[in-house]
Amino acid sequence: MSYREINAPLRTIMTPGPVEVDPRVLRAMSTPILGQFDPAFTSIMNTVMSMIREVFQTKNQWAFPIDGTSRSGLEAVLGSVIEPGDKVLIPIYGRFGHLLTEIAERHGAELHLLHCEWGEVFDPEVVINEMKKVNPKVVAIVHGETSTGCMQPLEEIGKACREQDVLFIVDAVATIGGADVQTDNWYIDAAIGGNQKCISVPSGNSPITYNERIEKILLDRKKVERGIATDKELAEKSYHHPIKSNYLDLSQLQDYWSPRRLNHHTEATSMLYALHEGLRILLEEGLENRFARHKFHEKALIAGIEGMGLELFGDSRWKLPTVTCVKVPEGVDAESVRAMMLNQFGVEIASSFGPLHGKIWRIGTMGYSCRKENVLFALSALEASLIRHGVKVQTGAGVQASLDIYTNGQ
Amino acid sequence: MSYREINAPLRTIMTPGPVEVDPRVLRAMSTPILGQFDPAFTSIMNTVMSMIREVFQTKNQWAFPIDGTSRSGLEAVLGSVIEPGDKVLIPIYGRFGHLLTEIAERHGAELHLLHCEWGEVFDPEVVINEMKKVNPKVVAIVHGETSTGCMQPLEEIGKACREQDVLFIVDAVATIGGADVQTDNWYIDAAIGGNQKCISVPSGNSPITYNERIEKILLDRKKVERGIATDKELAEKSYHHPIKSNYLDLSQLQDYWSPRRLNHHTEATSMLYALHEGLRILLEEGLENRFARHKFHEKALIAGIEGMGLELFGDSRWKLPTVTCVKVPEGVDAESVRAMMLNQFGVEIASSFGPLHGKIWRIGTMGYSCRKENVLFALSALEASLIRHGVKVQTGAGVQASLDIYTNGQ
Repeated sequence: MSYREINAPLRTIMTPGPVEVDPRVLRAMSTPILGQFDPAFTSIMNTVMSMIREVFQTKNQWAFPIDGTSRSGLEAVLGSVIEPGDKVLIPIYGRFGHLLTEIAERHGAELHLLHCEWGEVFDPEVVINEMKKVNPKVVAIVHGETSTGCMQPLEEIGKACREQDVLFIVDAVATIGGADVQTDNWYIDAAIGGNQKCISVPSGNSPITYNERIEKILLDRKKVERGIATDKELAEKSYHHPIKSNYLDLSQLQDYWSPRRLNHHTEATSMLYALHEGLRILLEEGLENRFARHKFHEKALIAGIEGMGLELFGDSRWKLPTVTCVKVPEGVDAESVRAMMLNQFGVEIASSFGPLHGKIWRIGTMGYSCRKENVLFALSALEASLIRHGVKVQTGAGVQASLDIYTNGQ
Repeated sequence: MSYREINAPLRTIMTPGPVEVDPRVLRAMSTPILGQFDPAFTSIMNTVMSMIREVFQTKNQWAFPIDGTSRSGLEAVLGSVIEPGDKVLIPIYGRFGHLLTEIAERHGAELHLLHCEWGEVFDPEVVINEMKKVNPKVVAIVHGETSTGCMQPLEEIGKACREQDVLFIVDAVATIGGADVQTDNWYIDAAIGGNQKCISVPSGNSPITYNERIEKILLDRKKVERGIATDKELAEKSYHHPIKSNYLDLSQLQDYWSPRRLNHHTEATSMLYALHEGLRILLEEGLENRFARHKFHEKALIAGIEGMGLELFGDSRWKLPTVTCVKVPEGVDAESVRAMMLNQFGVEIASSFGPLHGKIWRIGTMGYSCRKENVLFALSALEASLIRHGVKVQTGAGVQASLDIYTNGQ
């Protein structure tokens, strides 16, 4: 059978990830590769560690990408920290809270769950009270829940965790690089970021960071693998509850990312180049500027959505600035509108999961996709597609309202 | 802190991986990305599945990449198949046999190991006899052991496994795309390939394939995750021994790669583009031509090595055609020679692990690195560096011997 080269259409991607990639990042990936122990390469690894620290606003030594998608970063952290029988408290306010539960459960956690309605977040006091009752080893929570467009305030919970000597693990996949994530100031012990969202790198690696409270557990569970362990290492080590995964074993990964460079996997060279360039562009823009840019385009998008007569889903007090959820008007086939936007305009927006499927659309304004022309085009395509679906919208008013924001500035 | 763009030196990479990447593959990675459920993207996913089937010479339905490095492919297969207490027989003839053991052990296997000297392979009868004695659920073995440059004959073992209803799992990371891997004809139930070796794609995904004997186990262990499971799925499922990993759970991954496209991770877009282009180039060359090309350059390399008076490590009867191991001459600092080759010539060759560290060099001739000019330059750099280290070589004779092969043809 004969195969043709990739011939991919160019899309306007306004989902909560993966989002469009800066051409500079795409170009960085076409850099010829280096061997994994080449000093020229290990120096790039070190630079990426330094940039990850800045983006997570942390002084942690350990800050490196996991070679897999964001979910691999979540599992690397949870699976390396949770030992069978450990109590783990997970407050769930959307799909990705469930994902933390799935991962924790497979690694033997005794689960303690809190639930609230999809579209709301937790009063920190509720989480703190439950924590005092349960006395867990870990509290794990999602910072930005893309499934509902909500963002959970973390600082109070983090402070309470530290006071009670509970480990605080945060899924910052949807917020890192797009909204404030203050790892150290918020007492976060381990944070996991996504690269295919506000960092705007293709999916494929997941930057994480953790502090010495997490490292202590890793060192207790550490096992150097046969075939490369020294005889001394093989002889002296008696460990219990070893980390279940070899690939996602942080104790091995940190040896690989340490000056010792102990062989583990073969680092994903081109994805590291992509992350390097994505983080470099991000830090050149500056964290504060970047957060402000995300807020600004969110404002323009919301003006457009409300201007055409649609309603937002969720409460603005805890809205995730990088994802805007829109209620699907009564009687409208949400998937049919999405399909028309994609097929006629090349614009992709997202549906949602579980109880919200078919009830809301989710529009992302993340990283490189978070641009004026994208917001305006998405609004135009949405309006036109709604008209074709028989929805009465305030014709023209959405784009005009958005344009007002853009022409008047902040 | 301010960061500069990546400025990577161009190397001649003659290791057993990662190896040089075809410029066409590097270019494919700079294709703008698509959303993961965009029909234009799922169609590319299907094409990649079809190409993976061809490369593995299989009719298996399931053939897709794992989004992680080769080791993630190994763990996805072993971790999804092995349940606690399962007997797993692993014949070990180098470092990567140990790796299979590490992974199997963490997933609760009752390990049964066979060992032979590093530099040798197993007489299939020895493995078959042990299998009859142990009666394992799985026999797992490395096809091409890059740590020793040896290749294990598989067909007889595979046939015996099938007769005895034992699952046969093969690590074909170092051979796929460079040497014959006949998944179906050799009765291999699951095979794991590497992409950063003979397929010559940057490290970051790992193509695998498995048949319905493996799938049966996956379906027994399958768990649809909360947050996306239907109520019916949540209610009806009572499973035991669930797969320990969520990220590397083949039962979930095959749903994602099936027409159902059940959301799991966010497929690593640019790495998939790279794999698509790498496999396309491979299949355009043709499997037979490609295997012959690897044998031809191996011959030219060996002629050069022996021509300059160095000795090969290992027996030619079971030599891995894509890796050539060279004995380090008595009294020579192996690492110092390697460093000189890298720093003065930009040529990278490899050292080895464990008992062979410092005793052999390993020279890869894999995929895009397996080219005339690379072989000739590596020989030239090795000779010059050896002279600088005071080794008496047959000056000029190595390159001449290699050139004889190239100018006289096969």
